[in-house]
Amino acid sequence: MIYLDTDYMAGCHPEILEALSATNKLHTPGYGEEDFTRRARRLILEACGIPEGACYFMTGGTQTNATVIDRLLHRNDGVVAADSSHINVHEAGAVEAWGHKILTLQNQEGKISGSRIENYLRDFYADDTHEHMVRPGMVYISFPTELGTLYSKKELEEIYSVCRQFNIPLYIDGARLAYGLAAPDNDVTLKELAQLCDVFYIGGTKCGAMFGEAIVAREQVLLPRFVSLMKLHGGLLAKGRLLGVQFETLFSNELYGRIGKYGVDLASQLKEFLKSKGFKTFINSPTNQQFFIIPNQIIDKLKGKVSFELWGPPGKEESKVRFVTSWSTPSDLLPRITQIFKDL
Amino acid sequence: MIYLDTDYMAGCHPEILEALSATNKLHTPGYGEEDFTRRARRLILEACGIPEGACYFMTGGTQTNATVIDRLLHRNDGVVAADSSHINVHEAGAVEAWGHKILTLQNQEGKISGSRIENYLRDFYADDTHEHMVRPGMVYISFPTELGTLYSKKELEEIYSVCRQFNIPLYIDGARLAYGLAAPDNDVTLKELAQLCDVFYIGGTKCGAMFGEAIVAREQVLLPRFVSLMKLHGGLLAKGRLLGVQFETLFSNELYGRIGKYGVDLASQLKEFLKSKGFKTFINSPTNQQFFIIPNQIIDKLKGKVSFELWGPPGKEESKVRFVTSWSTPSDLLPRITQIFKDL
Amino acid sequence: MIYLDTDYMAGCHPEILEALSATNKLHTPGYGEEDFTRRARRLILEACGIPEGACYFMTGGTQTNATVIDRLLHRNDGVVAADSSHINVHEAGAVEAWGHKILTLQNQEGKISGSRIENYLRDFYADDTHEHMVRPGMVYISFPTELGTLYSKKELEEIYSVCRQFNIPLYIDGARLAYGLAAPDNDVTLKELAQLCDVFYIGGTKCGAMFGEAIVAREQVLLPRFVSLMKLHGGLLAKGRLLGVQFETLFSNELYGRIGKYGVDLASQLKEFLKSKGFKTFINSPTNQQFFIIPNQIIDKLKGKVSFELWGPPGKEESKVRFVTSWSTPSDLLPRITQIFKDL
Amino acid sequence: MIYLDTDYMAGCHPEILEALSATNKLHTPGYGEEDFTRRARRLILEACGIPEGACYFMTGGTQTNATVIDRLLHRNDGVVAADSSHINVHEAGAVEAWGHKILTLQNQEGKISGSRIENYLRDFYADDTHEHMVRPGMVYISFPTELGTLYSKKELEEIYSVCRQFNIPLYIDGARLAYGLAAPDNDVTLKELAQLCDVFYIGGTKCGAMFGEAIVAREQVLLPRFVSLMKLHGGLLAKGRLLGVQFETLFSNELYGRIGKYGVDLASQLKEFLKSKGFKTFINSPTNQQFFIIPNQIIDKLKGKVSFELWGPPGKEESKVRFVTSWSTPSDLLPRITQIFKDL
Repeated sequence: MIYLDTDYMAGCHPEILEALSATNKLHTPGYGEEDFTRRARRLILEACGIPEGACYFMTGGTQTNATVIDRLLHRNDGVVAADSSHINVHEAGAVEAWGHKILTLQNQEGKISGSRIENYLRDFYADDTHEHMVRPGMVYISFPTELGTLYSKKELEEIYSVCRQFNIPLYIDGARLAYGLAAPDNDVTLKELAQLCDVFYIGGTKCGAMFGEAIVAREQVLLPRFVSLMKLHGGLLAKGRLLGVQFETLFSNELYGRIGKYGVDLASQLKEFLKSKGFKTFINSPTNQQFFIIPNQIIDKLKGKVSFELWGPPGKEESKVRFVTSWSTPSDLLPRITQIFKDL
Repeated sequence: MIYLDTDYMAGCHPEILEALSATNKLHTPGYGEEDFTRRARRLILEACGIPEGACYFMTGGTQTNATVIDRLLHRNDGVVAADSSHINVHEAGAVEAWGHKILTLQNQEGKISGSRIENYLRDFYADDTHEHMVRPGMVYISFPTELGTLYSKKELEEIYSVCRQFNIPLYIDGARLAYGLAAPDNDVTLKELAQLCDVFYIGGTKCGAMFGEAIVAREQVLLPRFVSLMKLHGGLLAKGRLLGVQFETLFSNELYGRIGKYGVDLASQLKEFLKSKGFKTFINSPTNQQFFIIPNQIIDKLKGKVSFELWGPPGKEESKVRFVTSWSTPSDLLPRITQIFKDL
Repeated sequence: MIYLDTDYMAGCHPEILEALSATNKLHTPGYGEEDFTRRARRLILEACGIPEGACYFMTGGTQTNATVIDRLLHRNDGVVAADSSHINVHEAGAVEAWGHKILTLQNQEGKISGSRIENYLRDFYADDTHEHMVRPGMVYISFPTELGTLYSKKELEEIYSVCRQFNIPLYIDGARLAYGLAAPDNDVTLKELAQLCDVFYIGGTKCGAMFGEAIVAREQVLLPRFVSLMKLHGGLLAKGRLLGVQFETLFSNELYGRIGKYGVDLASQLKEFLKSKGFKTFINSPTNQQFFIIPNQIIDKLKGKVSFELWGPPGKEESKVRFVTSWSTPSDLLPRITQIFKDL
Repeated sequence: MIYLDTDYMAGCHPEILEALSATNKLHTPGYGEEDFTRRARRLILEACGIPEGACYFMTGGTQTNATVIDRLLHRNDGVVAADSSHINVHEAGAVEAWGHKILTLQNQEGKISGSRIENYLRDFYADDTHEHMVRPGMVYISFPTELGTLYSKKELEEIYSVCRQFNIPLYIDGARLAYGLAAPDNDVTLKELAQLCDVFYIGGTKCGAMFGEAIVAREQVLLPRFVSLMKLHGGLLAKGRLLGVQFETLFSNELYGRIGKYGVDLASQLKEFLKSKGFKTFINSPTNQQFFIIPNQIIDKLKGKVSFELWGPPGKEESKVRFVTSWSTPSDLLPRITQIFKDL
């Protein structure tokens, strides 16, 4: 069976398991107050080109989003985001649970544009009753988006320019950042990304770590008293060094880049193969998620051989499906898939 | 000057002022633990045909909505509502501040339909990932809506039938209920309304009271420990009898009905007059809010004579405007408006 | 019957009722955007000697406390307060409902001292684990306290000096401020009070208004976007001018001062009378609340003649009771009480 | 160096590391929907003697406490707990952040008694103003307590009897449960504990797991829609099987019992040794935390040889210190400590 359901189905990349095993017996202080975490932080901030920035580690994406958004917003602020965004759809209301409205804009293949955001902000401030409305206090986007798509450098510049014009922070959810940075179509480097937003997170859970996300802020002042806030949110790991060890490994020997490239290469091979078979994409994703329309008959035949998700309710004759590759996808995906289709 | 901006521009109906004055010197216990409040409660529940129901008083609409919704929802539930609803647009995020997501459906002239709600609920439960989504835990509608429109009895029956099918409560915001019940097109009585939802509120602030809203629940069990919850929400008035005195007056001698009829009659006269002048409505409202498209030239000429609100940004040649009547609109509105238009 | 249960048992001072009646028919914009509110604000800030300060109006004390504290605290901050404080005991958890812990210090007759606060703050910052603890982000005191006592000017100076040293705001709950300022023992003027804290509120509900509290901040920057926050908290009154009219009246013709003096004078007379009868106070209050220990036999005999509250559970032979005077207490309290005791 | 600072300084027990390594490459569904988690749940519920109960896994203690308490309480309820409890002191206000007040009782060596709880509950319901107060909606205790002490079976029975009498749930924080169950003085079995409360958690983080806590409820109905609530709280681990694998290991081959006994045995040896040296305990703990008063001179000499924590601010001549053993403490602790003291 080949598992292409999602990118968090296996434990962790072997190099990370090795690092966790090698350091297992050591005794260190808790809550990230040790050298693994310090080194991981330094490595990440150097890789981002902002050695004076801030970096914190949490265990999962929903927790990270809720905590960062809660820090960046004032009480009576909301966060502007695509209606398709993870925070709006698949985090069980965690942002609202902390009191903040999500101000949704209609997505275009998972993305929202600078001009659309600008119009929204202008309209808000032009409205006489805006004191009775939720002030847009920040912008959230994901890179790659939930639909696998990427913002170009120019698109990010436009969005960030609007944010600076209105003096509100831009936060980028990088749950699958490794696969975004490694995509052939991508024209944004990690260093550039760090200059095109205020805070972002580098996803670990879906990109080779056992668990963990690295929050990066261009300036420390953006995330004041953040350790205490992570504790308040139930997201300060007791054995914080587990996150330090993992991210130190991810940002040594270019592991994070290798993982991204590995996943994206396999996704590209899969995409080309499926297109060569005549299947159509319903979203043209350059990253590790691939979205195809497949006849139900074929979907049935693939059962027990390839595992993947239906995307929404099944259609009558054909259905939308998603294939996801990752660091844990077998490297011989293409020949195996080819053989499976031959045998159908 | 004739003020048609909104329906909360004057103090209170003279009969209410008289009642407040007549009782001013009395000493009574606080927090609604006295006979004015008890009588008001009994009068209201009798008028609603549910003598065994529950009735509580709060001072304003946003407070009332936030408190009732907070009571009806579990922590990890959201409220289904029209995107145009007051709670979604003009309450500064009060529902989200208490941790609840508003699950918006696109409105049709301020309304949402039973079938649209049913589809939403079906889709939610059919979704494999729904544990990661906000559960729709209740439905909110307004009667009249924010756009002055009304649900027919049949429409309410359909909505409530869906709610019962999915075992979630229906809550009706009646900020302008007096004007809804009194509308010529309306086919729902107060007693019927009380049978077509679980909780609703009878608006006082916009319907003749100095301030205050009466929350009505078909069964007491729907609003457990509600006095304590009102206190928690900062909405338990120390001199609760002020609310009791007002609602006792509103529900004696048919005052509430008279106020509604008065406001709606004047609105009808205004509507017919404006239509006779060739102006077009952009929403066909049967209640005390009237929505017209008026040439900017005429809008300018009306300045200093009639006061009203632009509805959204002004257009190039003509603009959308709203006229609102109420218990405090002068009874000679029609002759005065007619004269004003003659003099333009 | 003479009612001495509490100070919010009657409607409002006749001069306020007159002002509300006289202005009842006027049409004005909502939410405090009119001249009554502007004049009230100016009168109050002038009376406080801080014409450049900020002033907002809300309808009740719990609402006011929850909203101001929510504004002054960051998410991961708590408020230092006496264990006997109203916010800790009698607001149904409203401060915690908005996410903030109350950090309690043991009271001394309702008060906490500057040195006790200082020790608490020092200990907090000296604790290695303080990132895991709730940071004391402000101090709350009441003037008069819930037990009728007053801080001296020197005591307030000491408390405020500690707050400034630790750079956290001091907020004073003045629910019964009129009676505190008018107390013979009091050595603090309103102008001085305004210089000895960052934000305080001038109680209306218990001091002659029908309802309402006036929030005063030394600098506008202390309460940013406060109208929107009041809306979020469900505490922005639609007909805001009702609050403006009341506070304009209270701060014209020295009404607020007269009300305070009236209540305190009657309380002093009652206190001297009861002491002359041999009863003992269990708290020595200089304001409108008086706390005495009375034999149960006498308490029984007073029933139907004087109404007042037991303070805590009744004792075996004698019990603690509270008598409260106000603007609505009859001016012939002393002769009537004298006669009642004669007739016992 | 011997590390006795706390019990979460090393990675995880070798048997758990082995299990995580052995299963690392497997692909499984996320969020605990796989067989490791199912088996772990079954093993735990069997060990607790409640096969029909509910069991969920989260990553850390603060997260677990905040989520369980949030589920067990209604909006306007608080949790009764010792003033020394972890939730009150060291969770950065996480319980209050979710809106709930902690109603503190003074601890006796970390514990609170059934009779003290009963008095508090009685007083609450006897108070006329209790609708204005926070209702005690559940009781929280820890076993062992934060001070290493244990409740006897009789004490637990008394507490739980009070809870049932008032119809509120009892929740036990078992962060260090392994060391409590294994203590020689302990007279409560795991099966008995499960019958003496409604919900408790079995600590993993401090008891041999890399991270993770197992929440156990006697009945599933006590924790409705809990997966969704964990998601809302940011505590639903994507690779949920990591928790399943760890707890399956802990509850196979009696590992959890062995770990507890190992830690407690070493703590007993240390305690006897220190007592034999003439040092005094300031709390008499039967579990893996030991609390001694040690001369500062000796504390200084131990630096670089044994690492441990000062308990509160240092004294002039002697100070309070805490020593903590765990599964990761070297088995030759006693001879090494003996030698170190010889060499002082």
